[in-house]
Amino acid sequence: MRMVDLIEKKKEGFVHTQEEIHFIIDGYVHERIPDYQMSAWMMAVCFQGLNKEETAWLTEEMMYSGDILDLSSIQGVKVDKHSTGGVGDKTSLVLGPMVGACHVPVAKMSGRGLGHTGGTLDKLESIPGFQIQITQDDFIKQVNDCHFSIIGQNANLVPADQKMYALRDVTGTVACIPLIASSIMSKKLAAGTDAILLDVKYGDGAFMKTKEDARLLAQTMIDIGTSLGKDTRAVISDMSQPLGNAIGNTLEVKEAIAALNGQSPDDLLELCLQSASYMLLQAHITNSLEKAREMLEEVIKNKKALNIFAQMVKAQGGSEEYIFNPELFEKAKEVIAVKSPREGYIKDLKAKPLGIVSMKLGGGRETKDDCIDYSVGLILNKKIGDFVQIDEPLVYVHTNSGLSEELKTTIINAYTISTKYVEKRKQVDEIV
Amino acid sequence: MRMVDLIEKKKEGFVHTQEEIHFIIDGYVHERIPDYQMSAWMMAVCFQGLNKEETAWLTEEMMYSGDILDLSSIQGVKVDKHSTGGVGDKTSLVLGPMVGACHVPVAKMSGRGLGHTGGTLDKLESIPGFQIQITQDDFIKQVNDCHFSIIGQNANLVPADQKMYALRDVTGTVACIPLIASSIMSKKLAAGTDAILLDVKYGDGAFMKTKEDARLLAQTMIDIGTSLGKDTRAVISDMSQPLGNAIGNTLEVKEAIAALNGQSPDDLLELCLQSASYMLLQAHITNSLEKAREMLEEVIKNKKALNIFAQMVKAQGGSEEYIFNPELFEKAKEVIAVKSPREGYIKDLKAKPLGIVSMKLGGGRETKDDCIDYSVGLILNKKIGDFVQIDEPLVYVHTNSGLSEELKTTIINAYTISTKYVEKRKQVDEIV
Repeated sequence: MRMVDLIEKKKEGFVHTQEEIHFIIDGYVHERIPDYQMSAWMMAVCFQGLNKEETAWLTEEMMYSGDILDLSSIQGVKVDKHSTGGVGDKTSLVLGPMVGACHVPVAKMSGRGLGHTGGTLDKLESIPGFQIQITQDDFIKQVNDCHFSIIGQNANLVPADQKMYALRDVTGTVACIPLIASSIMSKKLAAGTDAILLDVKYGDGAFMKTKEDARLLAQTMIDIGTSLGKDTRAVISDMSQPLGNAIGNTLEVKEAIAALNGQSPDDLLELCLQSASYMLLQAHITNSLEKAREMLEEVIKNKKALNIFAQMVKAQGGSEEYIFNPELFEKAKEVIAVKSPREGYIKDLKAKPLGIVSMKLGGGRETKDDCIDYSVGLILNKKIGDFVQIDEPLVYVHTNSGLSEELKTTIINAYTISTKYVEKRKQVDEIV
Repeated sequence: MRMVDLIEKKKEGFVHTQEEIHFIIDGYVHERIPDYQMSAWMMAVCFQGLNKEETAWLTEEMMYSGDILDLSSIQGVKVDKHSTGGVGDKTSLVLGPMVGACHVPVAKMSGRGLGHTGGTLDKLESIPGFQIQITQDDFIKQVNDCHFSIIGQNANLVPADQKMYALRDVTGTVACIPLIASSIMSKKLAAGTDAILLDVKYGDGAFMKTKEDARLLAQTMIDIGTSLGKDTRAVISDMSQPLGNAIGNTLEVKEAIAALNGQSPDDLLELCLQSASYMLLQAHITNSLEKAREMLEEVIKNKKALNIFAQMVKAQGGSEEYIFNPELFEKAKEVIAVKSPREGYIKDLKAKPLGIVSMKLGGGRETKDDCIDYSVGLILNKKIGDFVQIDEPLVYVHTNSGLSEELKTTIINAYTISTKYVEKRKQVDEIV
């Protein structure tokens, strides 16, 4: 078999055999296939696609390219949630404890933020002392004890994806549904979960720009999960505006804590309740969605979920008093209000530029090696459907370095204000 | 400017600016852009194409990446002919002397053969003593003296193409009209010609499989030439069967000599007369096609073309007596007739497998470093439209290593024999 023939085969739109997919991935991981052939093949895949079988084989090959976690000593059905990422997405910090409080073990590996999207690990590290690197034994013990742990990804988990992703990132082959789907699913499957709930976002702040693409990505991942024997479901959710009101690491952790105290923005609460309800079904805790929702509302009301979050923080070396007294978190030097230049209804609110503003304030990484300033970020005072007066604040900017005219303009331009009435958006569009 | 953004731009189907094309080619030649990005970009080009302007800019960038030959001290309008290559294609050896004999300077750089197609340089080197490397001054002097020279390509001519072609060869991006067109035209333009006649072949033995693709490639090259100020025309010719009867280096040189002696197979003669007529027009020798054809027929009849060929061979160190006495050429040890298993009309005759048989007998290169056995090859006894009896020879195999059953079967299978009458093919389909 020659890689050049397989590239041409895909370029011409033919379907690979399982043996060919093995040849490609195994050859690439073991450096028999050079980057320049892999990038050409991936570009051909961007145009010609991969069918269900090819995508499942690809995922399986990637998954077995490194370690496979054995979480069988964790009691119960382990359900992992994966969000395709967005701006202000702190759902893992809210629904993780909620689901854990309902006795579903949540053993989660997360990633860091890059560009306009934040990362769960960075958010957690804004809690003083919090460790994202713990041994596998401690990880399993912690999930058995308090039903919740979030750690960094094992360095030898899916090396094929690490190598492929680094190449895709510089060769314009990131936006490609079968490659995105196999990248996500290979990591989830190698991380030893029993069932997977996907939160596939669409809109300006998300990877998928349209609901149709989000649906296609969701279905592709469900097909992979199903063909590899895992209960996989997906919610399709709106990321045309940021989720919740907070963008930035500490600000988002505080918003998550508020949510666990029963004080969540509606969109965040709704997404968490809907997603978590399905996770309870997947874990066979109940087979009624209404019952699941009641249970989840109850663990917020009785603070069980908040306590689980605090236990998790403590177990991983963090200061749990920050969870009960969020006022302890270090604050940015200054809070600057960006005011509305006109009055009307917020018709549109672009998530991506706001994510970029937060990054530029120091809250995110432009390149992988950048350091993060945890305290900075944005609090949105107005979202789609809200009415704003002239000079009323749109956004409060938490900053340690002032606010340039450029960033201020970016924030104002992220808002479209209409004189006509605009309805609020619903957060979850559909369940696949 | 970042290469990843330009890859994405092309992937999404947008049009590059001239500055962007410069950034890509200059960056690749000077190793600021790595192979893996270039191969991804070229694959995106395979799917999204390049428009007229982009293709012309690309060609110009490639052309100026190395030396530009200055042939201004050659008197007259220099017309270069380029064939897209095929099996049994010895036209340069026939029409070069014909055109030269009509006082049009032919200063030609040629390439070597690879795979199933032969190369003009290899054919010429089958003449004992023939040198394909001569100084540029000697090259110019020779063209001024005898109107004809064929040499190997200058090593620093279009380095961009050398680098890009090596990458395309291993990344499935060879078959792509704008990349083929810019590769050919950048070399022709850098070689200092005033006008270009293209012979674009289609069919089993050619790069372009259909007449439509050949027409598209021809038009793309004409557009490039025109936009860079060179009179460029093309003939579209049939390569569904080999050209002439001889395949193999010495055998093809002998067929070319026979043609210059007025004993050419019809298809070869017709292609040479038609192509050469246009070259005389392009060189402003006459503005009448009929007149051009008469002049060309005359230089065959009066042996002027043959004498020019002999002069060229002598000037480049070869033995001119071989040209006047082709019987001097070394012969293969054995000639084996491959006989027809049935009677009927030859309906189809695949060029590519016959090219491969000749290569496997030692007449061509499977890889760039293979040595060539000049004396071996095939003489076709039957071509499309001919009638064959049972056991009548289809092909005479000239070999130094016998003939395996496998190669014999390949030859027989290259023929499709029908009981119904089949018309002969015309060689040149159209002029663009």
